[in-house]
Amino acid sequence: MPETSQNTFFVSSRASQQFIDITGEVQSRIDRSGVKNGVCFLFLPHTTAALTLNENWDPAVPADILHTLEHQTAPSSPAHMHEEGNSPAHVRSSLFGASQILLIENGRLVLGSWQGVFLAEFDGPRERRVFVKVMEG
Amino acid sequence: MPETSQNTFFVSSRASQQFIDITGEVQSRIDRSGVKNGVCFLFLPHTTAALTLNENWDPAVPADILHTLEHQTAPSSPAHMHEEGNSPAHVRSSLFGASQILLIENGRLVLGSWQGVFLAEFDGPRERRVFVKVMEG
Amino acid sequence: MPETSQNTFFVSSRASQQFIDITGEVQSRIDRSGVKNGVCFLFLPHTTAALTLNENWDPAVPADILHTLEHQTAPSSPAHMHEEGNSPAHVRSSLFGASQILLIENGRLVLGSWQGVFLAEFDGPRERRVFVKVMEG
Repeated sequence: MPETSQNTFFVSSRASQQFIDITGEVQSRIDRSGVKNGVCFLFLPHTTAALTLNENWDPAVPADILHTLEHQTAPSSPAHMHEEGNSPAHVRSSLFGASQILLIENGRLVLGSWQGVFLAEFDGPRERRVFVKVMEG
Repeated sequence: MPETSQNTFFVSSRASQQFIDITGEVQSRIDRSGVKNGVCFLFLPHTTAALTLNENWDPAVPADILHTLEHQTAPSSPAHMHEEGNSPAHVRSSLFGASQILLIENGRLVLGSWQGVFLAEFDGPRERRVFVKVMEG
Repeated sequence: MPETSQNTFFVSSRASQQFIDITGEVQSRIDRSGVKNGVCFLFLPHTTAALTLNENWDPAVPADILHTLEHQTAPSSPAHMHEEGNSPAHVRSSLFGASQILLIENGRLVLGSWQGVFLAEFDGPRERRVFVKVMEG
């Protein structure tokens, strides 16, 4: 049984703004690692997307979150200078963060009843890469 | 002395929006673990609350933060579709995050002079559970 | 070769609101640790600044992020009660977070092509301290 394992998987977004549930993919990486108790680190090498935890039961929750980000928290602005025009996506990436820590107990992710792991796309559609590192302990 | 230990504690919020200082509770879990140097991971299995670090000296600081979240960063909106009506709490949870990393030196949390660890309640009053994992190293 | 190492470095900001690229400084600490594969934890013992990942290529990106924080996400407000007058800095600190997790592969930080590590100053100019902990595994 390895003490740690690291690998990556890819996620393809299909819209400009989208929450993609990656809970199952992360769990399958933990299964393969053989680690029963420890910590799972997720890392996203992108600056216009993020990793976040939220409710994965009612699809209205991600929709309302994206609506709030676009209209209230981090809207576009004529004052933005970055020529690619995706400055709001960069703001949202720093607000939600590019990494997540998850705990593992008896080989399973510790999560609340309605809690899932999402890749939050803010500048899609694109292919995104997620790094998974599992540490026993 | 165990190399790692994991356990949980419960926090009861008394208001809809509230910062609850959990610094002492976290430190007591580190004391019991016997770990002198390492990393402490905190995880919250909830999607309408968060864990955050901020000033725990002047109570006006948490009050001003909650005011900003409610009126500027993530207010309620008639456009929200989630029927429970707590979409702003879900947004705030992703903004602050459901986990924290803390460092341990000589058995003590590494914190700034006025820095404390808070459970940020965004949809209370409720009972919330906090997972604590301590890793030596 | 040590299994873990921890140390700190200092960063001096020169403006009230400023992104300071600390990627090179973090990499140099990893070099000195001798750790080839593992996790790097960064921790900031301050409550009016943050650590964040974002694009470190076009300087317009940090400028646009700071503009959005000031004008949209977490502006100042006459309703704020904290007498130091820096409540927006406290909000921004909790929004971006005081810590970061980074992965290490073959002795190098895992980062996207245009991704860098920043200290985000929200109440400068000040001297800030950054803790770096490297864990092998």
